[in-house]
Order: sequence, then C-alpha cells, then structure tokens
Amino acid sequence: MSRSIRLAVIPGDGIGPEVVAQGLKVLDAALPSDVKVETREYDLGARRWHATGDTLPDAELESLKDHDAILLGAIGDPSVPSGVLERGLLLKLRFAFDHYVNLRPSKLLPRTATPLAGRPEIDFVVVREGTEGPYVGNGGSLRTGTPAEVATEVSLNTAYGVERVVRDAYERAQARPRRKLTLVHKNNVLVHAGHLWKNIFDRVGREYPEVTTDYLHVDAATIFFVTQPERFDVIVTDNLFGDILTDLAAAISGGIGLAASGNINPTGAFPSMFEPVHGSAPDIAGTGKADPTATVLSVALLLRHLGYEAEATRIETAVTEDVTGRDGSARTTDEIGDALASRVRAASVTP
Amino acid sequence: MSRSIRLAVIPGDGIGPEVVAQGLKVLDAALPSDVKVETREYDLGARRWHATGDTLPDAELESLKDHDAILLGAIGDPSVPSGVLERGLLLKLRFAFDHYVNLRPSKLLPRTATPLAGRPEIDFVVVREGTEGPYVGNGGSLRTGTPAEVATEVSLNTAYGVERVVRDAYERAQARPRRKLTLVHKNNVLVHAGHLWKNIFDRVGREYPEVTTDYLHVDAATIFFVTQPERFDVIVTDNLFGDILTDLAAAISGGIGLAASGNINPTGAFPSMFEPVHGSAPDIAGTGKADPTATVLSVALLLRHLGYEAEATRIETAVTEDVTGRDGSARTTDEIGDALASRVRAASVTP
Ligand SMILES: CC(C)[C@H](C(=O)O)[C@@H](O)C(=O)O
Ligand SMILES: CC(C)[C@H](C(=O)O)[C@@H](O)C(=O)O
Repeated sequence: MSRSIRLAVIPGDGIGPEVVAQGLKVLDAALPSDVKVETREYDLGARRWHATGDTLPDAELESLKDHDAILLGAIGDPSVPSGVLERGLLLKLRFAFDHYVNLRPSKLLPRTATPLAGRPEIDFVVVREGTEGPYVGNGGSLRTGTPAEVATEVSLNTAYGVERVVRDAYERAQARPRRKLTLVHKNNVLVHAGHLWKNIFDRVGREYPEVTTDYLHVDAATIFFVTQPERFDVIVTDNLFGDILTDLAAAISGGIGLAASGNINPTGAFPSMFEPVHGSAPDIAGTGKADPTATVLSVALLLRHLGYEAEATRIETAVTEDVTGRDGSARTTDEIGDALASRVRAASVTP
Repeated sequence: MSRSIRLAVIPGDGIGPEVVAQGLKVLDAALPSDVKVETREYDLGARRWHATGDTLPDAELESLKDHDAILLGAIGDPSVPSGVLERGLLLKLRFAFDHYVNLRPSKLLPRTATPLAGRPEIDFVVVREGTEGPYVGNGGSLRTGTPAEVATEVSLNTAYGVERVVRDAYERAQARPRRKLTLVHKNNVLVHAGHLWKNIFDRVGREYPEVTTDYLHVDAATIFFVTQPERFDVIVTDNLFGDILTDLAAAISGGIGLAASGNINPTGAFPSMFEPVHGSAPDIAGTGKADPTATVLSVALLLRHLGYEAEATRIETAVTEDVTGRDGSARTTDEIGDALASRVRAASVTP
C-alpha cells in the first residue's frame, strides 16, 4: 500500500464540483496523517466543451494515466447535445482505461428512502461489465434525417471480455457470506451474446463450487428487484442491462443520492475511476441541496481499491450512522460533508 | 364490424392451455349470440418441438394468416434450449405478421398486489415497438465456444419502423384524458438509434400540439416507475426497453397475473395476436393455481381491436369488480374464469 495517493479529480458539471468537494473533505479525514494525497484537478465537461470544443484531449488522457485513481463528480448539461460528453468524455475514460468492472453496491439502510412497502432487506452488488456490449459505440446511420434512414447499434461481446468480468464477480460472491451469483441477460432473444455469457458463466462456475448460481432474463430481474430484492447477493451482467438495473437498484435502496460506483480496472494497468451513479442535476446546482453521500461512498470504494480497507469501512460506517440518524431536517451539501468528515475523524482517532 | 370472428388459438406450453380455456370462456360470454366465433387450435410450442422438431412450419404460418386474430397462451419450457421457441415461434409470429405495436396497459386496481408503499395511482400504457431494434435477430458469433469467441447483436432501426409506432402512440395519447406521451430510449449512449427515435418523436409531435411530451433515458425511467409511476400516461419505446419496462410495470401494478398485451398490426394486413405478458410457468402447470386474468384482459384487447368496444369494456369492468372483490381465499384457474364469465354475462343482459 503506497503512503501517497496521486488522485486525479474531475469535478465536472452541475452539482459535480459541490459533491466532489465533500468527497475530498472526507477522504482527508479518513486517511492517516502520514498518507499524502496529491490531487490534480481536470477541467472537463460542459463548460470546457462550450469554451473550447474539447471533450477529452489526448494530452489530458495521457496525464490522467499518471494517477492512482480518479474521482469524478458528474458530467452533462442540457445545453450540450445528448451523447457528446457521455461518449466523448465519460465513456471514453471507461473504455480507454479498460474499466471492465463497473461495481455498484446497493444496501437499504434503516430510515433511508425506499418506495417499497415493508422495507425488504436489500444488500447486493451489481458487477456491470464496463467495456463491451451495446456501449462500444459501434453503430451508424444511413440516409440520416430522411424517411429512408436506417440506424444501427452493434453490441460486441467477447469471450475475453465476458470471462474476466464473470471471474471477478465469482470472486466477489465467494468472499461474501451468502455466496450467491446471479447472471442477468436476455439469452432467449439475444441468443448469440446471451449464449456466450451463459456458457462462460457456467464454465467458470465449475471453479467456484461453493457459489450458488442462477440465471434471470433482464425483464424478470426487474420484477424481482421490486418484489424480492432480498434474493440477490452478487449480480453480473452486461453493460446496458447493468446501467438499467443499477438505477432501479438505487431507487429501491435509498435513492440516487446514496448510490456509489467504481469503474475498476482490476489489473491496475490504468487508474480506476470512482463516481456517484447520479448525474449533474443542473436544476439544483449551486443551491446546496445536493446530497454528497453517493460521492463520499464512492471515495470509500476508491480507498478500498487502493488497499485502505479500514479507512473505507470507517467511511461506510460514518455514512450508515449519519443516514440512520437523519431526523428529516434539511442540511446543506456542505453540512452533510462536514458531519461525515467529523464522524470519520472521530472514528480514526479512537483506539 | 364482422359478425363472425375467425380466431386462431395457440394454447402453447405450461399454464398456456389452462388460461386460454378461461379466455375463450369469457370471450363466449361477452359476445352477442349472433356473433359466431370459429376457433382453430394450433399445436405449437415445446411438446410439438420435442415430437417433430418443428417450431412454426410455413404451412401453419400461412394458415394462421387466414384469421381475424390470434389468442396465444404461453410459449416455453425449460426442456427446450433457450431461444429456440422464442425466436422460432413467438418472435417469428410477431415479425411475420408485422406486429409493430406491442400494446401493454398497466393499471393499479384497488386491492391488487403492488410492492410499492402508498399505492400510487398507476394508469399508463406502454406502446412497445415490436418489429425492430435488438430483436431483429441480426447477430452472430465467431469462433463459438473458444476463448477467442466474438458475439454480436445488431439493433436495427428504421425511420419507417419508428415513425409508424410513434404515430400510433401519439394517436393513443391524443385520445386519453391526460394527453401525455413519454419517449424512453438511451440516446446519450446509443446515439444513432437514439437520435433517430428522438428526431422522429419531435417531428411527429408537431402534428399533435395538444399532446404534452417528454423524454427519459431508460435507466431514469425505471426510477420513476417505482418512485412516481403516476407521472406516466402513454410511453413509446424500443422493443428491448419495452420488454424490460413492461415486466417492471406489471410488477408494480397488480403483478404478472394481471398483465395483458396485444401484438398489433394496425393496418389489418395480418392478424393481430393477443397474449398475457407472463410466461408458461411450468412449475404450476396443471395445479389450477394459474390466474387467467391476464389472458382474459388480453381477450378484451382482442375484442377492442376487432371493434367490439362495448364487449371489451364489459370484460374490463368484470375484471375490476372481480379483482377488487377478492377476499384472499384461493380460487382455481377455472373458478376465476367462471366468475369472470358470469359477471360478463350478467352485464351483457342488463339493459
Ligand atoms: C451518463 C451515462 C453515459 C451513464 C451510462 O449509461 O453508463 C450513466 O447512466 C451511468 O450509469 O453511469
Ligand atoms: C419470451 C420473450 C421472447 C418475450 C419478449 O422478450 O418479447 C417476452 O419476454 C415478452 O415480453 O413477451
């Protein structure tokens, strides 16, 4: 474990800078004083694109590589055509840095928001593939804008890409008490991609005899998310299905204000990137209403990824305590960040 | 309106035959005595495939054309490899008969099951495209089964195909009291298909100034399904997103036992096909536990499609009364069918 962290920070758009500021505050509170954090901030996102037309210039992509991890706030603004920043910045980073494990845990804490009656037990993690599927950007359109237009999107799936993420998911399932892994796909319709996923899932599974497995079509999975979310432990799925399922997962387990994610390259060849699942929420930017908790929890994932397990757990505990102690009175982004930082700091000095 | 109905019936697998029997019972109860229903049953599905290897032979596809509508129970069995019957029978029918409007209404009736706290008002209809998108079967795999395998799935989208379903959705929205239409796609990632959808949605919308419109990414749509389902009126979406959203819609609005659907060819060039959204549920086949209500409601959609509006409404009213009068005591498939049929019959003779 390195005693210094070179951290790239991309605050981004809307509430991004506000929540990232709190994430950094809590990071600072969590780390022992001898760990030096060197941060470098990158001005990327809507403002930059409007000013220069850049989404992610090569030089910045290169310089981002020279970090241990990336903390990202949020990207996107209604003033930018849909897709420009998503494909040109966010997805470009995930693909360039081969973030093949997109890790998205969901846990319903006491007293947090859920639309589900009876508050079922929710404690699962989605391992979303991050570098393949319909996200590869392999599509096009012919006779664009005419009545004869044809537009395609190609989902690309490789044994190489599927096996590595499936293996990662088995490892995570093996390490959890319930040891259960569910594959979600749509192999009765998307038969080629679906059978590739299912065959690899079954084959790799033979190396993990202690892990119980099952398979669900993505449509059926959404039903179980709302009727029996307690049945899930670890879920492994394709990039697009993972995108959809993890927003639904966030909605049922505390809301999008609490959902953290890590775009992880487990090999360490490139820096992993941590970001809240939520977007830039331009409607509340600058009002102090944004909940920085998802970003703070993303910082916990970042610390765990870098080997700071105790520090990560302290942050998660602080969040649990803070969230379950909420009395409904409104706090600003900054106040929540302060509260979390002082809880973490208090826990760090306790013997 | 024809005074005779030539109805093709595909009972299919598992609980399919049981629920279809109730659907036909209620159909009979709903129609005036001078309307003659000629049914022809088709033995298609898992049993047939095991016996002969056939999924849908050309001769049967031809003969199915010679009907006013098709009533389908459910297709599929775990003994058949995933995809064989889905692609070879169910989707083959939807594509061959150009069922470009896959209509799936959701309404939360009093006392029916919902996992959502507070029982929000749910009354929307999803217009799912039925003949394009990732469902076209345009994909393949190379070096199948080896560590070098590559599998693709191509989503095909045409202006022709998108415009006709979008137009249908605007017409439906225009005819409803709230006049609201939501497009669901993922145009920030699937930019080619997504922009085609969005451009056509906006252009056609100019012909429907009274219809309020909005756009949601599919991931965000799942959040609103569980946190604010009352915001939806009519939703139009792609084949795959529609598949996922309508299972979630069924789960929040009474469960899969109540979800009806119509695979509609609005031009009348080919027979439309009506089926419950649920599958063949082989685990409860033959036990009398299957709820035939989704099939009965599909029969109502069938009647409305053929111009029997009053009869369709009578069935829907009977279902509402039956469902809201349930006292929790278990009834068999047959008993529910009988109860619905007698309610419909009683309503038909009342002046
Ligand atoms: C903004 C968008 C490109 C992104 C995605 O689709 O992956 C987001 O929805 C997410 O889940 O991180
Ligand atoms: C069985 C399957 C092919 C089908 C689909 O994906 O369309 C089903 O899920 C449905 O929604 O009717």
